[in-house]
Amino acid sequence: MQKYFVSDEDFKLNQITGEDCHHIKNVMRCKPGDEIIVSNETEEVIATITSIETNIVRYEAKMAIQNNSELPFFIDLYQGYPKGDKLEDIIKHSTELGVSSIYAVIMKRSLFKLDSKKKESKLERFQKIAKEASEQSHRRRLARVKDIIELKKIDFSNYDKLIICYEEDAKDGEASNFKQIIKSLKPNDRVAVLVGPEGGIDDSEITYLKSKGFISCGLGPRILRTETASMYVLSSISYEWELK
Amino acid sequence: MQKYFVSDEDFKLNQITGEDCHHIKNVMRCKPGDEIIVSNETEEVIATITSIETNIVRYEAKMAIQNNSELPFFIDLYQGYPKGDKLEDIIKHSTELGVSSIYAVIMKRSLFKLDSKKKESKLERFQKIAKEASEQSHRRRLARVKDIIELKKIDFSNYDKLIICYEEDAKDGEASNFKQIIKSLKPNDRVAVLVGPEGGIDDSEITYLKSKGFISCGLGPRILRTETASMYVLSSISYEWELK
Repeated sequence: MQKYFVSDEDFKLNQITGEDCHHIKNVMRCKPGDEIIVSNETEEVIATITSIETNIVRYEAKMAIQNNSELPFFIDLYQGYPKGDKLEDIIKHSTELGVSSIYAVIMKRSLFKLDSKKKESKLERFQKIAKEASEQSHRRRLARVKDIIELKKIDFSNYDKLIICYEEDAKDGEASNFKQIIKSLKPNDRVAVLVGPEGGIDDSEITYLKSKGFISCGLGPRILRTETASMYVLSSISYEWELK
Repeated sequence: MQKYFVSDEDFKLNQITGEDCHHIKNVMRCKPGDEIIVSNETEEVIATITSIETNIVRYEAKMAIQNNSELPFFIDLYQGYPKGDKLEDIIKHSTELGVSSIYAVIMKRSLFKLDSKKKESKLERFQKIAKEASEQSHRRRLARVKDIIELKKIDFSNYDKLIICYEEDAKDGEASNFKQIIKSLKPNDRVAVLVGPEGGIDDSEITYLKSKGFISCGLGPRILRTETASMYVLSSISYEWELK
């Protein structure tokens, strides 16, 4: 069943507005009588569509659902800005795997120049991808793409654990930091996970991150691409804590 | 350092032939004196390039390397044939994450029709992607794309463990089969992992697979896309067995 996240106001009024109407009408080809799931991130209901107009879909809430699909921690991904449209795949997959927030980080080896005029439209597009992936994977909460930001402008002071995925460590056989950190997590811990761009993390950045309390971690003996590292991290956290 | 897999014969003759010569010359822009890693999957050496011609690169082996980058098991991925070029990404990422062999499986809900004339060229292209990803991730062995095959034609009799990634189980909260199987693995066990295409696995296929000894497994409480399931599986196996 397709899920839609709506604002608190729309949730109270039993209606869906904006682009989701197009999705309901033209992509899912729903008709009155069809069932969907609607959520405002706090409550979630199975609903029957009662009318479909161009910019407004109305529904009747049938049954509240208990949705426990969130990781027991808040995992924020700080992704070194990669080439091409890799970031879109990273947003998609990390959202499915339970990430809380995503920051695209401009690092020394990112081949991306921030055009401040385009920043807002880029963020809007990224947030749309995160919303669709949150709906498709039946998350309780929306994953959020919070910012495109330079490394040194990030405030990391509110995290309980700080992890750098560092391929040089993987090459050197470092194989215990990551698992030890993951096993030590407590419910609602806030975790920052930093992944470098394709060219890796510059030595000066590693020094800077360590001075902020980051622990560098190898993720197994193979060299992972930048777009695979976050999936390894989030899958492992789910495996460790969500499976029995 | 860039790695190249070569045939036993080329390895014996300290030479690289075929398309890799183009890669060395035009992509990596190597010159005589540059170092590369060369492997025939059994032995692996750091080598210095001595000459570069159009179809042959010669090198001098400098130092043998011990490469322990393989998972301690043989994990074969049976991937329901997905839409578009998703299969190429799945080959790339599962190779990085340590898969042994990949089979593209034609299932009831695959939107792919096998054109037997194109099969060989498709497999060739897929194998090239697996070779490049094996080199880039510094695998000891090459991952292999073995076949494009209909589900009922596959012989699953030689596996120690048989896993279906089944989203209906995830929805129903099944959360223990996967971890129990992974924790029970013994060195060199052969594991088949089957992931359905986008539309999922048909009930009749589930019944068939269970009759062959497959155990259906939920992979956490969120619904994963077909291209994410194999990454979850392989990352978790690495986390469980390669990290301490």
